[in-house]
Amino acid sequence: MSELINNYQSGYSLGQSFYTNDDIYQKEIENIFLKHWIFVGHASQIPEHGDFFLFEFDQESIIITRTKTGEINALLNVCRHRGSHICLEKKGNTKSLICPYHAWSYNLDGKLLAARNMNDDFDKSANGLHRVHLELIGGLIFISLAEKPLSLKSMQADLKDTFDLFGFDKMKLIKQNTYHIRANWKLAVENYQECYHCTPSHREYSEIHAAALPPAKRNQHLEAYLKTKTNAVRTRSCDCYFDLANEGEEGYQYSREPLLPGMKSGTAGGIAASRLLGNITDYDGAASDLMIGPLSFFLIYDDHMVGYRFMPLSIANCVCDLFWFVHEAAEEGKDYDLKELTWLWDLTTQADEEIVANNQKGVNSHFYRPGKLSEMEGFHQHFLNWYLKVLKP
Amino acid sequence: MSELINNYQSGYSLGQSFYTNDDIYQKEIENIFLKHWIFVGHASQIPEHGDFFLFEFDQESIIITRTKTGEINALLNVCRHRGSHICLEKKGNTKSLICPYHAWSYNLDGKLLAARNMNDDFDKSANGLHRVHLELIGGLIFISLAEKPLSLKSMQADLKDTFDLFGFDKMKLIKQNTYHIRANWKLAVENYQECYHCTPSHREYSEIHAAALPPAKRNQHLEAYLKTKTNAVRTRSCDCYFDLANEGEEGYQYSREPLLPGMKSGTAGGIAASRLLGNITDYDGAASDLMIGPLSFFLIYDDHMVGYRFMPLSIANCVCDLFWFVHEAAEEGKDYDLKELTWLWDLTTQADEEIVANNQKGVNSHFYRPGKLSEMEGFHQHFLNWYLKVLKP
Amino acid sequence: MSELINNYQSGYSLGQSFYTNDDIYQKEIENIFLKHWIFVGHASQIPEHGDFFLFEFDQESIIITRTKTGEINALLNVCRHRGSHICLEKKGNTKSLICPYHAWSYNLDGKLLAARNMNDDFDKSANGLHRVHLELIGGLIFISLAEKPLSLKSMQADLKDTFDLFGFDKMKLIKQNTYHIRANWKLAVENYQECYHCTPSHREYSEIHAAALPPAKRNQHLEAYLKTKTNAVRTRSCDCYFDLANEGEEGYQYSREPLLPGMKSGTAGGIAASRLLGNITDYDGAASDLMIGPLSFFLIYDDHMVGYRFMPLSIANCVCDLFWFVHEAAEEGKDYDLKELTWLWDLTTQADEEIVANNQKGVNSHFYRPGKLSEMEGFHQHFLNWYLKVLKP
Repeated sequence: MSELINNYQSGYSLGQSFYTNDDIYQKEIENIFLKHWIFVGHASQIPEHGDFFLFEFDQESIIITRTKTGEINALLNVCRHRGSHICLEKKGNTKSLICPYHAWSYNLDGKLLAARNMNDDFDKSANGLHRVHLELIGGLIFISLAEKPLSLKSMQADLKDTFDLFGFDKMKLIKQNTYHIRANWKLAVENYQECYHCTPSHREYSEIHAAALPPAKRNQHLEAYLKTKTNAVRTRSCDCYFDLANEGEEGYQYSREPLLPGMKSGTAGGIAASRLLGNITDYDGAASDLMIGPLSFFLIYDDHMVGYRFMPLSIANCVCDLFWFVHEAAEEGKDYDLKELTWLWDLTTQADEEIVANNQKGVNSHFYRPGKLSEMEGFHQHFLNWYLKVLKP
Repeated sequence: MSELINNYQSGYSLGQSFYTNDDIYQKEIENIFLKHWIFVGHASQIPEHGDFFLFEFDQESIIITRTKTGEINALLNVCRHRGSHICLEKKGNTKSLICPYHAWSYNLDGKLLAARNMNDDFDKSANGLHRVHLELIGGLIFISLAEKPLSLKSMQADLKDTFDLFGFDKMKLIKQNTYHIRANWKLAVENYQECYHCTPSHREYSEIHAAALPPAKRNQHLEAYLKTKTNAVRTRSCDCYFDLANEGEEGYQYSREPLLPGMKSGTAGGIAASRLLGNITDYDGAASDLMIGPLSFFLIYDDHMVGYRFMPLSIANCVCDLFWFVHEAAEEGKDYDLKELTWLWDLTTQADEEIVANNQKGVNSHFYRPGKLSEMEGFHQHFLNWYLKVLKP
Repeated sequence: MSELINNYQSGYSLGQSFYTNDDIYQKEIENIFLKHWIFVGHASQIPEHGDFFLFEFDQESIIITRTKTGEINALLNVCRHRGSHICLEKKGNTKSLICPYHAWSYNLDGKLLAARNMNDDFDKSANGLHRVHLELIGGLIFISLAEKPLSLKSMQADLKDTFDLFGFDKMKLIKQNTYHIRANWKLAVENYQECYHCTPSHREYSEIHAAALPPAKRNQHLEAYLKTKTNAVRTRSCDCYFDLANEGEEGYQYSREPLLPGMKSGTAGGIAASRLLGNITDYDGAASDLMIGPLSFFLIYDDHMVGYRFMPLSIANCVCDLFWFVHEAAEEGKDYDLKELTWLWDLTTQADEEIVANNQKGVNSHFYRPGKLSEMEGFHQHFLNWYLKVLKP
């Protein structure tokens, strides 16, 4: 693997083995998916004591619960007796977690409450459910399966004002959709990192967002936007993402990108989609890109937010989950139309499903060789640099 | 593998690798499924000359035939020419076994009868079908694929009176059902070894059988039963199972277990299910557990018998076959109702299908660790001890 | 692998590993499927400038195109940017090949025409599509993925008259059918090499072709045929196939085989199927076997030709493609009936699908051992000799 990593030539795509070798996939599970912070949902999904939902990927199943004291917990869905899954429903409300196999029962914070017919030397306190690190970012729930997770402190301090501006803790999730992609997860993440493909592949997106333009034109739009808009919290730019993250910290990124003239939001014709978010008082003809950790991305329009999360199912299959958020006070039918609001990114992600699967097919060929990246694939290059770094033994 | 085996801690469940590592699975095929005795059916299934049925598992297919002299044979369903399967029907009647590919034909005891256009130096007598060891236990057919199988002599001598009492050779098979379990075969066998899960998972069973009670209560029932019943052949107990088997012999076990008060048989409400078996003259409110070899189990009620057999399909999938037997003279509609008679164990095995699949899901987690067994999992512990012993290089 | 190869005993079938070991399969891909010449179609399928079709197997996809100058090209369907498949349709007509991902566009001979937003140091001339060797044999299109392919010169010189006689470049493809076989590709090819199985498995074929007869009888028919027919181009015999091929050359074979008395063509009752091919002026009651390379076979009746091609999908699955050709001037409904003309080999190949899958099942058994071949499996033996030779490291 060291040899493969060292052979990588900057400015080019990755070699085939990174997309097809199962040992590399196992290393990725260990070094990326069991280490880094992952977005799993929003506090608004479990408002009441006893509410829970499952987050599942690869071989893992994690229960996100709300306790009596209002605390949110993440617990491995694996009974400490003989390992059965405990929660079989994807979401619900329960007083305690009772394993359906032998009826061991656990509190909503994972403490073992009862286990029948165990010998006297059995220590209940040592047999609680495995707890998973959890952090709330605004109302967004992130987990890390690492023993000692990367720090989120600088990010939380750095972006607090921004989270407040957009009212992250005053949103509600109105739709989640799962897209199955017949490709290695990296091809899906790489696809999301670059807008070189937007013009040929995403006509609808390209009619709304300036990011689809060639660099020179896009920069003109960006400079013009920044000259007229002066809200420092809204228009700032943080570049601590991927290989640019500080040692020991989770990577993150924030920037504001202009829409095309006349566009207010990510909808057909760029018309307004819902109530303005948080403390936003006006449309400024732009949208923010936010990234927290390597797998979770958010596109913040002034009146709604779209979240993306990429997770593997196997070396050759992954899923992209999309999450649509609006102001918690927005009402369907009155403030927003669900179909209009989800139209752009549902359509775009369906197109990406096909694009990325066709990329995998070619990468599988014995004759595929890494190709030269364009000048519109710089963000993508940072992903590759980071990836090779975290893979190192 | 030695390290994995040595790391096992008694009183705990097995580590993950035993359920997920394909090398271990191949070792199991060699040391367990190609060695130990396996129940394949009952002589009553092939009463006439030329009758046959197939027994299939993993990559193997075995033809069980009845010859002209009435003998029962087990033959590999693999042509000695280029290896084609010969019998394609699951059961039937035939004069000889003719390979559909090149028409080599074999006698019902496997002798090669004819092979067209072979050179003169071809030795027909050296090209019969591979014969598999077969033993009749009462009318029950067992096979072993070992070159030199474990001895069944002590077992046959020890349990002869019991087989006679229940009339094993005067039964008939009235139904066989296959249950596909999305789990490693061991999780299915372990599930069958313990009644710790009966109360939470099998309400219907628990309302009929005393074995679902906690140990102290169950022992009260057992002692009361043994005090009033004195048929030594019926109430005996043999503990030569799993790691308790004698060197060079196949393991076996027999014991009589009380039903709950008022229950006669394994039916809804515990009512009688069919004619009394063999030489049985009265219901005694109990049922016998019989195990022959590590994969075949029988639950003998006074009026019918249920057989279970566990076989792997792959490391992550197995099948449980259930067999229902009644007295050979019993008539459907008059002596028994098929639906009533099969109700309890069909229902219970369907529940186990789900339970065991959910166990596998949790065992697959990177965070699964072996857990402490309860005092109701002693039989299960013997299975684990035996398993680790036979796996040793 | 060397040990496995050296252990092979001539006159017997291959050992199990050759059909089940994935390392061997990878070696086969390299040494056979990425080296040898493969039949992919006929020039008549792409008559116009811009016409193309795809040839796909294992992980490879190859575009066969007709350029403005009328030349036929074979190009890897893998974009030189990040590896996406370019052509997604199985066939069609296009001015240029435009990758749907980032819109890199290529000429029909593979030259890179345009790539947006690349840095100045990007060399377009070094980023054309990977070209695959292609050779026209009559109008039959063959490709080789080897860097330096085996020579076809002797074959082309040797068989030119024969190709002319049957008018290979004046045919048209009227039907292609794909048969999925649940077996290793070698079992399918071996099946095609021997007529030992014809009598038991292919009644319809055996009622038309003398090749199904035992050797002595078949030779009588052959001698009688050769005595009365004297067209040297039609009745010749070339044996440069498999292990008999000359060093550095691709193997090939041609021979003329009699039909049974009264039969004119490969149809029900042996009746005429279509217009006579090429310069053929009469039915001579025979058909020719032609083999070019190890995977492509042709059966040439006087009035139509059937092509076969065997390609792997994975170690345990393969496809057989059948191609039916008639004289380019033949008209459906008037000169031929498609159903009548395709009847025999569609039926026969469907039967082979089952036969070969049942062969694989038995070969998978732990108890399968190589078996002795018959005297009717000599051609098959040449395949085995060649196979073991090309597999050698």
